[in-house]
Amino acid sequence: MTTYILRPVLSTLKLWHVRGRCSAPQSDDLAQVKTMLQLCVDRYFISPGKSNTARFRRGMSCNYGPLGMELRRNLLEQWWRSVSSSRDQVFGISTVSCTMDGDSDTGEGGGHLRMVEAESLKQMLQQENISKEQIIQELQSLLQRAPPLRRNLLQGALLQFVPMLELVNRKLPFGLAEVGLCFEPSDGSGRLTEFTQTSLVWFCSPRTSSQWLDHWARQRLKWWRKFSLSPSGFSISNVPGEEVIAAASRGVRVLYNFPWGQEALETLWSRGDAELLHVHNGVRSKLQCRNERKSVPQVLSITGNVDCGLMAFLFNSLQQLEKKDGKQRLQHRKVLKLHPVLSPIKVALDTGRGATVELKQVCEGLLHELMETKITVWPGYLEPAPTSMEQLFAKYDEMGVLFSVVITEDTLETGLLQVRSRDTTIKETMHISAIMNFLTRYISAAEKI
Amino acid sequence: MTTYILRPVLSTLKLWHVRGRCSAPQSDDLAQVKTMLQLCVDRYFISPGKSNTARFRRGMSCNYGPLGMELRRNLLEQWWRSVSSSRDQVFGISTVSCTMDGDSDTGEGGGHLRMVEAESLKQMLQQENISKEQIIQELQSLLQRAPPLRRNLLQGALLQFVPMLELVNRKLPFGLAEVGLCFEPSDGSGRLTEFTQTSLVWFCSPRTSSQWLDHWARQRLKWWRKFSLSPSGFSISNVPGEEVIAAASRGVRVLYNFPWGQEALETLWSRGDAELLHVHNGVRSKLQCRNERKSVPQVLSITGNVDCGLMAFLFNSLQQLEKKDGKQRLQHRKVLKLHPVLSPIKVALDTGRGATVELKQVCEGLLHELMETKITVWPGYLEPAPTSMEQLFAKYDEMGVLFSVVITEDTLETGLLQVRSRDTTIKETMHISAIMNFLTRYISAAEKI
Repeated sequence: MTTYILRPVLSTLKLWHVRGRCSAPQSDDLAQVKTMLQLCVDRYFISPGKSNTARFRRGMSCNYGPLGMELRRNLLEQWWRSVSSSRDQVFGISTVSCTMDGDSDTGEGGGHLRMVEAESLKQMLQQENISKEQIIQELQSLLQRAPPLRRNLLQGALLQFVPMLELVNRKLPFGLAEVGLCFEPSDGSGRLTEFTQTSLVWFCSPRTSSQWLDHWARQRLKWWRKFSLSPSGFSISNVPGEEVIAAASRGVRVLYNFPWGQEALETLWSRGDAELLHVHNGVRSKLQCRNERKSVPQVLSITGNVDCGLMAFLFNSLQQLEKKDGKQRLQHRKVLKLHPVLSPIKVALDTGRGATVELKQVCEGLLHELMETKITVWPGYLEPAPTSMEQLFAKYDEMGVLFSVVITEDTLETGLLQVRSRDTTIKETMHISAIMNFLTRYISAAEKI
Repeated sequence: MTTYILRPVLSTLKLWHVRGRCSAPQSDDLAQVKTMLQLCVDRYFISPGKSNTARFRRGMSCNYGPLGMELRRNLLEQWWRSVSSSRDQVFGISTVSCTMDGDSDTGEGGGHLRMVEAESLKQMLQQENISKEQIIQELQSLLQRAPPLRRNLLQGALLQFVPMLELVNRKLPFGLAEVGLCFEPSDGSGRLTEFTQTSLVWFCSPRTSSQWLDHWARQRLKWWRKFSLSPSGFSISNVPGEEVIAAASRGVRVLYNFPWGQEALETLWSRGDAELLHVHNGVRSKLQCRNERKSVPQVLSITGNVDCGLMAFLFNSLQQLEKKDGKQRLQHRKVLKLHPVLSPIKVALDTGRGATVELKQVCEGLLHELMETKITVWPGYLEPAPTSMEQLFAKYDEMGVLFSVVITEDTLETGLLQVRSRDTTIKETMHISAIMNFLTRYISAAEKI
């Protein structure tokens, strides 16, 4: 396999000093970051390339390879399940990322970034007899027509509040959950960034908003820790007074302790009712709930950055081991001990040394059987053959694959194959007829934990 | 429940004549469209509002309510499963929607729409002593810096080709699958649109590309029909010569017969190798595969519009029934007979007439049990109480809910509850201890069909 040389590492490291809240990274930490980024490129979590690695490292959306894409899917699925099944009053919604009618160009939600048709701008500039005033006028009208791109999912949820209030018989509390792409002008560099946000907007009575903020902060921390290898990396802390945004009275952050310092994965704000009133033009009667003396609901926002969360779980799950091999040589092993539920690939199928047509057919059959039970499988038999079995298992450890199944010429004769576990490194010999049952049992048990 | 008055219907109907390929709609068809759109708003598939309904009707991304959002999730999940598990050589990827470095501003992929920071443009216009030439210069440099928004997912896949070719040991065929947001300048109206695209880009040898195009066209048609109530609404047809895009040699469309005429849900193109070569600056050696005499792969693109597909399944599944009630009055019933796998809500829990605290607790308990087995449940007991049981079932039929479970005061005493099926309209009395088993069995059986 090709190892992409990771030139961008140093340039991304330079970003540290602009991120704030970071202690100076130690050389051990530097090495850990470098190892992690290289692993992500080599093992198809992210695509190679300087700017892509930099984007990933800064917690933005980037080009993900098959493993990164699956990890992200799993993460989003778990977030969704946790938020929507935690309470009966959480409803999913999906809103557009650019508003056509300027109907939500208010507050924090939009305004900064706009989609412009480059062609019409170019055509205007090519007109010969156009005056400065005309240019300015046309530009202003163009800007007004250009739809703003959302910076967060809050506005969408606030707009959906009214029909949803009818749905729950005007009773509080309830919540609206959404996952979607958001856009942000980047600080300083002039570059624009996109990222995938998770959002739960919770509407509750003024009397209970403080308890709800604490409730959700605890819930979210519990969720992050549930899937982590070393839970102490995740923590919560109140947002210090000077950093509280204008709209909010109080904030809590879920933090992860990256090698370069703590960064927020999720932020919870108690935002009062001003923004909700603003979006609905101050018409209190539309917003009043039946219980709680007809008060206008308080808004809590719980927003996370999926790309940043994905990176946290990757750093959290990386174990670097030193082990002496048979000839007493020191070996460095990297194992990505992702939680079984998050692991992008549960099972890898391989033939060890070069796949013959018959071996490939056995692999394909098993692959389809596993896929039908919704288990993600890696077709290792398609990849270039490794030089040794140790190399093969090392590769799958770096991919976080739970089980490596090796099918050899022996399998064709005896029906026996080898199953190797990532977490125990134990290799078992098993009959091919028993493998499906073994794997589905283990994986569905892991999902229920 | 509030019924939103559907003023936009007429204005969206006016859109028909601009869409082309449409026969003049009959008044029956008009009524059907009107009924469908009203149902979608009333039953939380889409959010109310004139522009939102228009967007939905035109097959763009719109603001979806809880049911629309779940239906979309189910549709994407099924698409994903079908594409990724159909063959072992399909890999999922995820690419960014705006490129930062202009590195993919080529061909069909970008260029037209750009993200502009409105603030910097405004600031420029406010400078007093700026000359016309300076404005033009600054605008040109602004345009060049502004990242283009993608119009399709093809470019991303073509860029990912090289690392993925290494992965499969330089052997063809293989495919890259992705789902993502794309942006398009709207024709004529000057408005911009966003939509969610599904994309499979298939790389194969020149010799086999024609067979692969036929293979995928058949597969895709089979997929659409699998989930439909009346499969004949879906068809495939070759793209007529005059409509074939410049990059492609041949095209096939999967069409749905909407009340206003046929529209494409998915389009398959045989695109040759020119775009792939262009993206990789013509470096053939990077692109050559090991088999097939080191040829550069041919590219097939299979792209669908999720929002349009969702609408097709809604129209396809709507059954309008006339039935006489006990008093010989003619009743009109609408049933959304969505495939069990696609139905956004599998089970509704209700109490019929107003929920007491005890009844609500029983409902909540059952709701959490069902959610844990990944069955989507509707908390009907939170909604305003209906006037009759018939009204209640009519509502759930319009939501496409598979089973309505009614818990009453009797349940508290005897443990018995009523289960009503959407498809048979049969009501069964069942003990509460048996309900979980009954529902999970039915639903998991339906998923395996």
